[in-house]
Amino acid sequence: MTHAVRLRDYTVSLGPLAESLPEALRELPYSKLFLLADSHTAALLPPFLDRLADARLVLEPGETHKNLHSCTQVWQAMLAAGLDREALALHLGGGVIGDLGGFCAATFKRGIRFVQVPTTLLAMTDAAIGGKLAVDFSGVKNIVGVFQNPAAVLADPAFLTTLPERELRSGFAEVIKHALIGDPALWATIRKLQTLDSRLDWQALLRASIRVKVRIVEEDPLEKGLRALLNFGHTIGHALEAYYLDSTEPLTHGEAVAIGMLTEYWIACGEDARFGELKEVIARFFPWRDLSSGAAPALWQLMQQDKKNAAGAVRMATPAAGIDTLRLRAIQESDLAHALDFYRALR
Amino acid sequence: MTHAVRLRDYTVSLGPLAESLPEALRELPYSKLFLLADSHTAALLPPFLDRLADARLVLEPGETHKNLHSCTQVWQAMLAAGLDREALALHLGGGVIGDLGGFCAATFKRGIRFVQVPTTLLAMTDAAIGGKLAVDFSGVKNIVGVFQNPAAVLADPAFLTTLPERELRSGFAEVIKHALIGDPALWATIRKLQTLDSRLDWQALLRASIRVKVRIVEEDPLEKGLRALLNFGHTIGHALEAYYLDSTEPLTHGEAVAIGMLTEYWIACGEDARFGELKEVIARFFPWRDLSSGAAPALWQLMQQDKKNAAGAVRMATPAAGIDTLRLRAIQESDLAHALDFYRALR
Repeated sequence: MTHAVRLRDYTVSLGPLAESLPEALRELPYSKLFLLADSHTAALLPPFLDRLADARLVLEPGETHKNLHSCTQVWQAMLAAGLDREALALHLGGGVIGDLGGFCAATFKRGIRFVQVPTTLLAMTDAAIGGKLAVDFSGVKNIVGVFQNPAAVLADPAFLTTLPERELRSGFAEVIKHALIGDPALWATIRKLQTLDSRLDWQALLRASIRVKVRIVEEDPLEKGLRALLNFGHTIGHALEAYYLDSTEPLTHGEAVAIGMLTEYWIACGEDARFGELKEVIARFFPWRDLSSGAAPALWQLMQQDKKNAAGAVRMATPAAGIDTLRLRAIQESDLAHALDFYRALR
Repeated sequence: MTHAVRLRDYTVSLGPLAESLPEALRELPYSKLFLLADSHTAALLPPFLDRLADARLVLEPGETHKNLHSCTQVWQAMLAAGLDREALALHLGGGVIGDLGGFCAATFKRGIRFVQVPTTLLAMTDAAIGGKLAVDFSGVKNIVGVFQNPAAVLADPAFLTTLPERELRSGFAEVIKHALIGDPALWATIRKLQTLDSRLDWQALLRASIRVKVRIVEEDPLEKGLRALLNFGHTIGHALEAYYLDSTEPLTHGEAVAIGMLTEYWIACGEDARFGELKEVIARFFPWRDLSSGAAPALWQLMQQDKKNAAGAVRMATPAAGIDTLRLRAIQESDLAHALDFYRALR
């Protein structure tokens, strides 16, 4: 059974791809269909997809491939396939494929339409929705990109059963974030969850989580104001993710954001009642990480390129009282250092 | 004296840069000003500009540099300058700087604002206006890009006196095009012109020419219909330009478009009265070019990537009866070959 969350310009369909894809393609006449997937996802695709596609490209998985070099492979394949402006691109994979493919589609011949088929929890609940497309450049995450909405998003919870547990937890950080900033009922549900597995009602969890994101991006598509709230946990989280990217023990996006949410909330609000709840939920789903004690200056350096910054100040977005309310404040390197000390003491 | 042509989202100012730039910057508060120029233009810039800029990058001039490699230089310089989303980019140069700089600005941190200061006739009357931004890729012109309007366009006719005559003539092809498709009074003026030099009233010519372009792009910003009319002469013209790009005698953009206008008009309408006028005007301002007789198949191949193509057919946009009216039709390789034979016989 497919459930639809409608946005102004497109629809997010939640349900089996075998139902949602043929329906979406009927509503999007196209000249040629270009399929982009990572090699993990390509191995899982139903055969009917290959018959539909006029051309396909499979990329290596992983954030290290979310760069301009991969873009040149995509554009080259689009040229070779002879795509015109009425072509449709179909992106099957996690956030890397969606962000990178979306950026390439939005810039090929100044823009062709694309459909996002997110296959990870992270991409279903976050990356595929809201039109933020980008690639990493020169060691900075998501620095080259555009805002462009997809023609449709098709999220099939069946893909979640294929994910390693650590990947599922990674995406769950965004579900936690959405619940905390915008859905008290979802927050209550999450507080009662003990484990993440395929027996959960993912369709219901996804629907609630996606609705928070949709409500906020519809209110502020170009991140002029409220949308920064979706960045909760990501100011410090992105820096942590980048800092450990080349280490022997990289953090997943969600692990980094989980630490980011805890430390940012602590800086903004201290140890209030909601902080207690957040700490408990995060401790249940994410391992404590032994952050190196001298990391603050390097993290601070990485935070200089945060896109929320203005007038030379690093700014952090945290929830305020009530749902969908934003507190945006400048932070100092000392705030960061204290928060990291606090986190280390939580062991 | 500065004259303003207002569009929905921005204004094209025609007049001395020393007047128009300070006025534009007052209306566009910014965190940092990033200056991009080609080395030709950089040598001509007034000293006050260098004092205003927080960072600058000078690129080699020429279409061969309008590529992703140059983009990486621009993004790198933007990162090094610590630009945030409130930064403003100022692009001084011809179409290459405007198109490339615009694409980089429109994609840096998913988009910062930019001001176009076109310094060639081609850029003043065409490239800087209308929000089409792109770079060349894999031998195909303007294949990677976006639509994004500038915050302002500042055209100073004084720069025209610095141009070699061949470059001035190149830009004049677009003025001829605008007159023919959309301004009978400008067309009458052009038919009476004998030479191009600095004694002409360039401000008046530019104003009329720009008004045609503005009217059409406001009607159809994303080229879903009428805007294709601005592509008159460019289906064959772009292919000619690309074909001779690496030869010992490359064609300028305008020389290629002039041949493109003649041949496309001939294919669409034959030798009617207006064709006679067009032939006369083009013969006065552009040298006849001895096109290689076997070029048609290679040109046809290049035309396969034209962005107007649909459903596998190469499409050509020519004016129909009346101003701002478009005839869009599929053409065959034989049409092209016959038109080139016709052109060769014009010697």
